[in-house]
Amino acid sequence: MSTPPAICRSVESARRMIRDVQQRGGRTGFVPTMGALHAGHLSLVAAARERDEFVAVSIFVNPTQFGPQEDLNRYPRTWDADFAALTEAGAHMIFAPPVEVMYPSYWSTAVEPPRVSATLEGECRPGHFRGVATIVLKLFQIVPADDAFFGEKDYQQCLVIRDMVRDFDLPIEFHACPTVREPDGLAMSSRNRYLDAGQRQRALGLWRGMQAARAQLAAGLRDARQLEQVVVEQLQRAPVDQIEYVAIRDPDTLETLDVVDRPARLLIAARVGATRLIDNCGL
Amino acid sequence: MSTPPAICRSVESARRMIRDVQQRGGRTGFVPTMGALHAGHLSLVAAARERDEFVAVSIFVNPTQFGPQEDLNRYPRTWDADFAALTEAGAHMIFAPPVEVMYPSYWSTAVEPPRVSATLEGECRPGHFRGVATIVLKLFQIVPADDAFFGEKDYQQCLVIRDMVRDFDLPIEFHACPTVREPDGLAMSSRNRYLDAGQRQRALGLWRGMQAARAQLAAGLRDARQLEQVVVEQLQRAPVDQIEYVAIRDPDTLETLDVVDRPARLLIAARVGATRLIDNCGL
Repeated sequence: MSTPPAICRSVESARRMIRDVQQRGGRTGFVPTMGALHAGHLSLVAAARERDEFVAVSIFVNPTQFGPQEDLNRYPRTWDADFAALTEAGAHMIFAPPVEVMYPSYWSTAVEPPRVSATLEGECRPGHFRGVATIVLKLFQIVPADDAFFGEKDYQQCLVIRDMVRDFDLPIEFHACPTVREPDGLAMSSRNRYLDAGQRQRALGLWRGMQAARAQLAAGLRDARQLEQVVVEQLQRAPVDQIEYVAIRDPDTLETLDVVDRPARLLIAARVGATRLIDNCGL
Repeated sequence: MSTPPAICRSVESARRMIRDVQQRGGRTGFVPTMGALHAGHLSLVAAARERDEFVAVSIFVNPTQFGPQEDLNRYPRTWDADFAALTEAGAHMIFAPPVEVMYPSYWSTAVEPPRVSATLEGECRPGHFRGVATIVLKLFQIVPADDAFFGEKDYQQCLVIRDMVRDFDLPIEFHACPTVREPDGLAMSSRNRYLDAGQRQRALGLWRGMQAARAQLAAGLRDARQLEQVVVEQLQRAPVDQIEYVAIRDPDTLETLDVVDRPARLLIAARVGATRLIDNCGL
């Protein structure tokens, strides 16, 4: 049986715990989350455990990355299950601050996120990456770990954070880890809880779209717009209720590609009922 | 005779030097500068020496805090004199990166500075505090010292950095140090080198304005607009060539004050010839 992780609610206690490990010469890993943990999050903890002797996880539903019409208030909070899962996974510390610790009333400094934030999610969710970059910068200052782990399910978020780490010279090593999927292909997401049984089935359109695009590419179709159309058809067949984007892009800059004659990324955002789902894969 | 400071030109070497001192349990101080050092800068090094056993100074003329019409290209570069002065002052390390180390071509992440940046210098120099906050954040990541020292001559800059440190939870202690003045009252500034003998005399208008405001306040005048007018008259008498602002403000938020019935800050920006001068004092 594992030792339960220490719970830190203040900046000082979290920072001290990391610094103490580092002072002893230990390497520390950090997995920032919004809780509602699933196997995807736990794979990040496992990756951290492999690389670092001390693993910190933050649980904080960050209000600044939600738009005014978004699901901040109904975002799932599952503390007891999260705590049990992190104990089982062997995390050593949970940083779970109250919102007023992260955003006191006088707070007003933010991160202007890197260029790669402008497209796709940046267009659909104005201010989202400003909120993400700001909270991640703050968390990296509070939990000054050696390694940080993020899931590729949020592919553009990975690029935003990778570029912020680079551009701000943050002394942390960024790691992106593969998306974890349900047996039928649906990407793990805290928002999957919102789906009823019928919606859950229709949500597979994203996976089927990616599979179809890969199959067509393997069969020789290299035109990016035509491959996107293959995905759109799968999404319409599911059907999803709204397609926000289907985009084949440069995997590093997210610039538009016309022909898939080199590594590319396929990114999808669609709604099933009121639930917004995103997914992506390499091509 | 003092040992000359080590010179670091890379992120890795600067960070390692600070971390090594900290690993031994030593406390580190940091004085960010743009070089062209004067007695004001050296007073910051002295303050750091008092508090910290290892003192790092950065010398970097930061292009992102200059406007397109400003004096980036003619800003004084005086490396040999700076190195000699820092040796004499007992600094242990100089971080002097090439511009491409701080701003590689792909750089695109910036700091959106705190609320206090919007007024005064923020209005006169659009983008200035974005550049200041961004470079200071980067420097704090590269030189992860325990203490940072800034001069009150740049009063609003002090507030911007103080608030950024607070809002981003940066693990560094911010210290503002008093302005150092020439015997006749002129605030030390690297830009004073631009002044010819006649301009140098006229530049005393800022000091005389502050003295006159203090004298009137001591004599019972508490109306902020009338006190500002007292300063304006001194500036016109000097004369300076252009008054950018004369403002009596809350010393913490820089909000406008009507009556000086509590601590206030008087801030001035004016041009003498092509040279832009700023100064400030408590009231």
